[in-house]
Amino acid sequence: MAKSFIDKACSILFFLLLIQAVLAHRKLSLKQKEPCKRFVLYYHDTIFNGTNAANATSSPVNNVTNISKFLFGLVVVFDDPMTLDQHLLSPPVARAQGFYFYDMKTTYNAWFGFTLIFNSSDYKGTLNNMGAGMMGEETRDLSVVGGTGDCFMARGIATFRTDKLHPSYTYCL
Amino acid sequence: MAKSFIDKACSILFFLLLIQAVLAHRKLSLKQKEPCKRFVLYYHDTIFNGTNAANATSSPVNNVTNISKFLFGLVVVFDDPMTLDQHLLSPPVARAQGFYFYDMKTTYNAWFGFTLIFNSSDYKGTLNNMGAGMMGEETRDLSVVGGTGDCFMARGIATFRTDKLHPSYTYCL
Amino acid sequence: MAKSFIDKACSILFFLLLIQAVLAHRKLSLKQKEPCKRFVLYYHDTIFNGTNAANATSSPVNNVTNISKFLFGLVVVFDDPMTLDQHLLSPPVARAQGFYFYDMKTTYNAWFGFTLIFNSSDYKGTLNNMGAGMMGEETRDLSVVGGTGDCFMARGIATFRTDKLHPSYTYCL
Repeated sequence: MAKSFIDKACSILFFLLLIQAVLAHRKLSLKQKEPCKRFVLYYHDTIFNGTNAANATSSPVNNVTNISKFLFGLVVVFDDPMTLDQHLLSPPVARAQGFYFYDMKTTYNAWFGFTLIFNSSDYKGTLNNMGAGMMGEETRDLSVVGGTGDCFMARGIATFRTDKLHPSYTYCL
Repeated sequence: MAKSFIDKACSILFFLLLIQAVLAHRKLSLKQKEPCKRFVLYYHDTIFNGTNAANATSSPVNNVTNISKFLFGLVVVFDDPMTLDQHLLSPPVARAQGFYFYDMKTTYNAWFGFTLIFNSSDYKGTLNNMGAGMMGEETRDLSVVGGTGDCFMARGIATFRTDKLHPSYTYCL
Repeated sequence: MAKSFIDKACSILFFLLLIQAVLAHRKLSLKQKEPCKRFVLYYHDTIFNGTNAANATSSPVNNVTNISKFLFGLVVVFDDPMTLDQHLLSPPVARAQGFYFYDMKTTYNAWFGFTLIFNSSDYKGTLNNMGAGMMGEETRDLSVVGGTGDCFMARGIATFRTDKLHPSYTYCL
């Protein structure tokens, strides 16, 4: 079940190097992102609104600044379940723990730092992510800057899609 | 114009690997940082002082702690334009979005996490940076820990110079 | 003294690539973490409690949120000395500067971003770390996502052990 999904998910550096050697010989475009190990996770964020403490999975931790209407400076800490499909009540395969803050004066825009934590009987490990979410675009790319455990030394890209119904991260490691 | 600058700027991993292979054969010093793709960007930060909301590009988001005179614990979120020369009004080639906080009791010192965002018709992509700025020194080195888009998988160093007139980042990817 | 310790500590990418090539030929497990350059540092954190401003090396910088009993959302900035043995008064070989915040509703758990700064006559450089500390486990692995100076381009793992008497980081680069 979850096993095969993570088998595909966790690219380690040895393998990455082999792929790159092959690509180099083929003189493919430097922007080439394929082949990469790809998987999709859906996340479920319930922000604290003052009354939903029992269900909330994230919360602002400071006050908004006065230099913009777009929440500039607001920091939010989150601990969100990640599932393999769009359903909130599906069994989580990972948790995304970290923070983001709004950092643009003229529109909603956020900077993320978070860790994807796999902690099941099948797999243990983490993927560390950081980057900017340019909210004006349909998708945003964050960097996967490292990993531990079964994702030891992973690097890659996490593509963040904010479809309101089914927000997701597509990982390409 | 901006095109050739970013052509030089965005080192991708394939190329990096080739360079490294060459260096390894030459038995150069392990601390060797050259050759690397190098470019300089000037940044322009206008911190919110309570009255300049229209022009400010950064703002504190919390209160200072009481354990030091050197702003220990103060967090600042910024969204600064980056230009190719020292002039504030030059057309920005990128934005630097992120945060820093002061983290030393005995002097001014800061820790940075930010993303350099290229979003022009020529280039789209990001460079993700983190590290400590030891303010006692003329220059500080941050790590470039990842990139997306045209800077896919970049790694390297950003050298931060706080010349008061022309503060800049020199990237070596 | 400290020299040999850092000689062992700072793995650079050239060397890492050679090791990986060897491992690939031997068809070792993808989860293989050895051989790596390994070293242990002990850290000494004294959190500000309202009265110990002179000795404190860290301080909360905001207020706790209301969605959990486990300090959810509390951000702490630190500047901790790191030593080669368990004694607080040993000469520090580095400082760990950065922040963490609590990010779990059901237990104590934290997310870290920090830089290890070596700044002696023998060595200058930094190691940049990020990741989640799953406090329920005896040890936690963070990612080393980059380095500068004598640790130029380092990557690896920092294993965080919260033995109350001798909390430490074991680096494997």
